[in-house]
Amino acid sequence: MKILKLLGSSRPDGNTEYLVNQSLEGVEHTTIRLSDYHIKPIADMRHTAEGFPRVDDDYEKLLKVFLEHDLIIFATPIYWFGMSGQMKVFIDRWSQYMRDNRFPFKERIAQQKAYVVLTGGSDPKITGLPLIQQFGHIFDFVHMSFEDYVIGNAVKPGEIKRDEPALQKMDQWKVQFEQSSEKCEI
Amino acid sequence: MKILKLLGSSRPDGNTEYLVNQSLEGVEHTTIRLSDYHIKPIADMRHTAEGFPRVDDDYEKLLKVFLEHDLIIFATPIYWFGMSGQMKVFIDRWSQYMRDNRFPFKERIAQQKAYVVLTGGSDPKITGLPLIQQFGHIFDFVHMSFEDYVIGNAVKPGEIKRDEPALQKMDQWKVQFEQSSEKCEI
Amino acid sequence: MKILKLLGSSRPDGNTEYLVNQSLEGVEHTTIRLSDYHIKPIADMRHTAEGFPRVDDDYEKLLKVFLEHDLIIFATPIYWFGMSGQMKVFIDRWSQYMRDNRFPFKERIAQQKAYVVLTGGSDPKITGLPLIQQFGHIFDFVHMSFEDYVIGNAVKPGEIKRDEPALQKMDQWKVQFEQSSEKCEI
Amino acid sequence: MKILKLLGSSRPDGNTEYLVNQSLEGVEHTTIRLSDYHIKPIADMRHTAEGFPRVDDDYEKLLKVFLEHDLIIFATPIYWFGMSGQMKVFIDRWSQYMRDNRFPFKERIAQQKAYVVLTGGSDPKITGLPLIQQFGHIFDFVHMSFEDYVIGNAVKPGEIKRDEPALQKMDQWKVQFEQSSEKCEI
Repeated sequence: MKILKLLGSSRPDGNTEYLVNQSLEGVEHTTIRLSDYHIKPIADMRHTAEGFPRVDDDYEKLLKVFLEHDLIIFATPIYWFGMSGQMKVFIDRWSQYMRDNRFPFKERIAQQKAYVVLTGGSDPKITGLPLIQQFGHIFDFVHMSFEDYVIGNAVKPGEIKRDEPALQKMDQWKVQFEQSSEKCEI
Repeated sequence: MKILKLLGSSRPDGNTEYLVNQSLEGVEHTTIRLSDYHIKPIADMRHTAEGFPRVDDDYEKLLKVFLEHDLIIFATPIYWFGMSGQMKVFIDRWSQYMRDNRFPFKERIAQQKAYVVLTGGSDPKITGLPLIQQFGHIFDFVHMSFEDYVIGNAVKPGEIKRDEPALQKMDQWKVQFEQSSEKCEI
Repeated sequence: MKILKLLGSSRPDGNTEYLVNQSLEGVEHTTIRLSDYHIKPIADMRHTAEGFPRVDDDYEKLLKVFLEHDLIIFATPIYWFGMSGQMKVFIDRWSQYMRDNRFPFKERIAQQKAYVVLTGGSDPKITGLPLIQQFGHIFDFVHMSFEDYVIGNAVKPGEIKRDEPALQKMDQWKVQFEQSSEKCEI
Repeated sequence: MKILKLLGSSRPDGNTEYLVNQSLEGVEHTTIRLSDYHIKPIADMRHTAEGFPRVDDDYEKLLKVFLEHDLIIFATPIYWFGMSGQMKVFIDRWSQYMRDNRFPFKERIAQQKAYVVLTGGSDPKITGLPLIQQFGHIFDFVHMSFEDYVIGNAVKPGEIKRDEPALQKMDQWKVQFEQSSEKCEI
């Protein structure tokens, strides 16, 4: 089972990255840091005769990697009580590639398992719940299996190291991820 | 009272635009169509010594217009059960300008009134509620007054014309907006 | 189409009742005021061999009336950010009667249309949304069609009379209800 | 620090009780099983001249015990995507006793710490979130500190024993509860 860490942060070595990394220590996985790539916002051409045009950016390259994995960890800081713009722009473009026969989007995504890692402040374990619900609706829509989520309480660099329950959850995930990796080696 | 229509759509003349326009017929207002501008996603430098760097894009020009208005209508299609990436990227950058003394961000935004217009499919009057909650948290955080919201049920072009309750709400808003405009002429 | 007003208020002539009544002026309908009846909380016997025992209270009489109607208006004050205990106790008992062959519960409820009327304070148009989501899940579960909802802003007696958008929505519903009633006369 | 387990279940030895008990093994605490008591739904007399009348039931006795504790675990099965009617009826009555000078309701509750334990089916870790949000609003309103929550996935008797993440969270709470108990012995 191939694991992808999809990182929506705009800050290197931030709390979100620290938190998700606790679950991946010693576990084979791929990392995509969305802020390292050029991704254009969607131009909605669903309802035009010509359909979506080819877009000149890094998206298709990333999507190819995305679809090659079996377990996706969506890791994003909570910006303004939602996922980062970087991650939203990435997901919005799914609307285009659901309709593009060059990619087996619908078939593959329906086989993937999803985990969500959020970190933020302002009482995030409550105010982050609409974002969890949004992810719930997203995964339902594409038939991804929503395995688990964690919300870390952290704003300033390093604060996440004090969120014991979030860290302990990562230890639990790590056990699962290690087992999943083993399974695919057989 | 100066009114701004902030449009997060990526499709011209879409359902969102049609819906919000029903409330603005004959009412003086400014339009910003976010997809017409180049706006970079935030690079979070809140916690660095140097702070946020100047960014070479259209953001400051738009922010200046934004802050000149008293009543903001956030109008966005529901993409993947959230606001469009275009609008999210716009709001994420607030984090930068809250800390930039060249803009009276916090003072002005706390005086603004906010309206939200959403359109989408997949049972939007229920599945759009996490997005309304997100806007609620956003406006609370910056002390904007959240006046009202409408969720239109529409996916294909023109479908919004059949959503009677949404259209009737726009008629009600129009009366309020006309009165607000009159007040500022005195 | 037979209309039932199911009232969860504990106060006679309160804001909730005033609001829902605006949609029913001149429209034939039945009223159940839950606080007028004796309804016991559910004792969960789903997983016992003997099943649910007969309960000595007014529930079956009310349920019979409930199932005879085609359009149900669930009207409840928001108490502690949820429906009133009176209404919750009523709904909890559904678990018992879904499994009781004397009542055509599942078949009938899947044909019913649901409307929800809430009134409350503390920023109810936002803080009442989890309750709307709860109703959404409930109606999904039993395959009721969730037609519309309104959240009125009112705490003290009579305050609802100042909530123009809520009152205007009731005018819209009234038109629908009048048409529904006519349909059934044919 | 005195710990109260407030149990909203209607079934003895159910999943909710099993789950919460994992966090309390060897920890001194008091148990209130709401279904063992007679509690009347609230009759809202807030806005009447005479105010709330004395109610002939077990409520005041329970409330007294409730207010004597420092840490409250609200443990309820998810019934119809909300707390049980038993627990809702208990909380609704707070509106009465907030206004009753015989009880130091507001002062005491603002000092209490709250934990929430839910168990249910139908994708509870997502569909239970509106209930968590409701508890969030409730605790905000009375200034209780919302410490943590767990949502267990279990419907049939004993199913909770397979929900590893929920059980592990209880192990974490147990450590906290043991430390809290020790603190009060000093």
